[in-house]
Amino acid sequence: MAQATIGDSEFDRETAVTLRAPGVYDTRLHPGWTILNVVNGGYLLALMGRALGETLPNPDPFAVSAHFLTPSTPGPATVRTETVRTGRTLSTGQASLFQGGEDGQEVERIRLLASYGFLDALSDDVRTAAKPPEMPPPERCVSADEGPALEGDFAILGRLGMRFDPATVGWAVGEPSGRGEIRAWFELADGRAPDPLSLLFALDALPPAAFDLGLSGWTPTVELTAHIRCRPAPGPLRAAVTTRNLAGGFLEEDAEIWDSADRLVAQSRQLARAPRG
Amino acid sequence: MAQATIGDSEFDRETAVTLRAPGVYDTRLHPGWTILNVVNGGYLLALMGRALGETLPNPDPFAVSAHFLTPSTPGPATVRTETVRTGRTLSTGQASLFQGGEDGQEVERIRLLASYGFLDALSDDVRTAAKPPEMPPPERCVSADEGPALEGDFAILGRLGMRFDPATVGWAVGEPSGRGEIRAWFELADGRAPDPLSLLFALDALPPAAFDLGLSGWTPTVELTAHIRCRPAPGPLRAAVTTRNLAGGFLEEDAEIWDSADRLVAQSRQLARAPRG
Repeated sequence: MAQATIGDSEFDRETAVTLRAPGVYDTRLHPGWTILNVVNGGYLLALMGRALGETLPNPDPFAVSAHFLTPSTPGPATVRTETVRTGRTLSTGQASLFQGGEDGQEVERIRLLASYGFLDALSDDVRTAAKPPEMPPPERCVSADEGPALEGDFAILGRLGMRFDPATVGWAVGEPSGRGEIRAWFELADGRAPDPLSLLFALDALPPAAFDLGLSGWTPTVELTAHIRCRPAPGPLRAAVTTRNLAGGFLEEDAEIWDSADRLVAQSRQLARAPRG
Repeated sequence: MAQATIGDSEFDRETAVTLRAPGVYDTRLHPGWTILNVVNGGYLLALMGRALGETLPNPDPFAVSAHFLTPSTPGPATVRTETVRTGRTLSTGQASLFQGGEDGQEVERIRLLASYGFLDALSDDVRTAAKPPEMPPPERCVSADEGPALEGDFAILGRLGMRFDPATVGWAVGEPSGRGEIRAWFELADGRAPDPLSLLFALDALPPAAFDLGLSGWTPTVELTAHIRCRPAPGPLRAAVTTRNLAGGFLEEDAEIWDSADRLVAQSRQLARAPRG
């Protein structure tokens, strides 16, 4: 397949939103971004983030805080946005995703608050000493289709070019490390370069860190906050998800994404319900 | 001073909200919780969280995501709440804090989304191996009044009984460690035991981790998300703030709070503007 570009790719076409009225965007949740017919949360953040970027005067998501209300399914949807405050360096907005329920009434799927700014106006100054996750080069990592066959429809794997660090995939064959960490090289399958919106997706694209603690099954997100800190350089990303606190039936999960220029370009933390398994 | 109790303490009296109409609460931001006459963000989260706890059927904050719009000052304020979704285990709400502007118009200070549940219904199961911050016992830690004199009015110190790990206070005498971490024992000054609302405050009560990187000055929060994971046991808390990513004029700051029973009871992450100094 020819290399896709920002603006002309699966991700761009399938997160498109169409202005219907001020602050109201029509969209269609694409079945390509689903697991067991439920739409991935990161894809929804990217799509809602795109609508909010069209609403606010500042183009780039800096901090996006989303609370997940009901599961989203492929098909038509509406994003409603609100400008909360505009400012010179940062503006804040709100967005909600709705889908038609069985009785024809709109059901709210996700509500989020977000602060947007200008990533290109930030300095290159870095004061911390954090390092990218240590992992073998992509050719010595493993793709999902080298692992055991999955039960059910993981359509989203067709959109991804992930290659997992072999040290963090034991859980796929019943041998979790117990550390609660999964690392992978991350690209979109059609080779589209990363940008701030695709980082919102990538932050929620890896398997749950709980799998590396020996749990398996559905891990629904309650809340996810993403910070986009830098416009990513072209090339493969490195992503790591970890958890420090799986307790009382919930877990926190932190994600970090590093770009090919060794910059920490995105961070997220989510609260999720722990899998039962 | 006699030991204060939950319900009868400075914190309880000074975060009180009074229902004026459905979803509308009157309150007064108390000058005791300020730094240089700006009201502390954690105190505001606690006060808004209290109003939302009265609005929603589920009493306890699980995840609170706040975007800070304009600085709050002591005096009258209004909290407006909205029920977004109610559920058996979790309900989601929204709250905004307003104060009168100079022209008499209401100005929004903070908007937040929050998911509330029942902390007492959670199991005691813990699957992760995270450990409390290692620090000397309180009697070998140092209080703020043992440090150099502060310029300006740090009224909030009168509400706190913090004792800092000596290994993380070098920044106060011009010798930051460069690690970006500050640890302290944490209590309210009047001895009131911790509860979920006071944890919302405690998560934003320590000095910014950026100080330990050699920066100083105002570090305004853009966004802060708090997770309350467990009802805290009575007794002093241990709190740690760290940063991994101070870059481009912003920093992420993570806080963790452990209770006297060695449980990780609260976590937060915020995006803040880096101090200029």
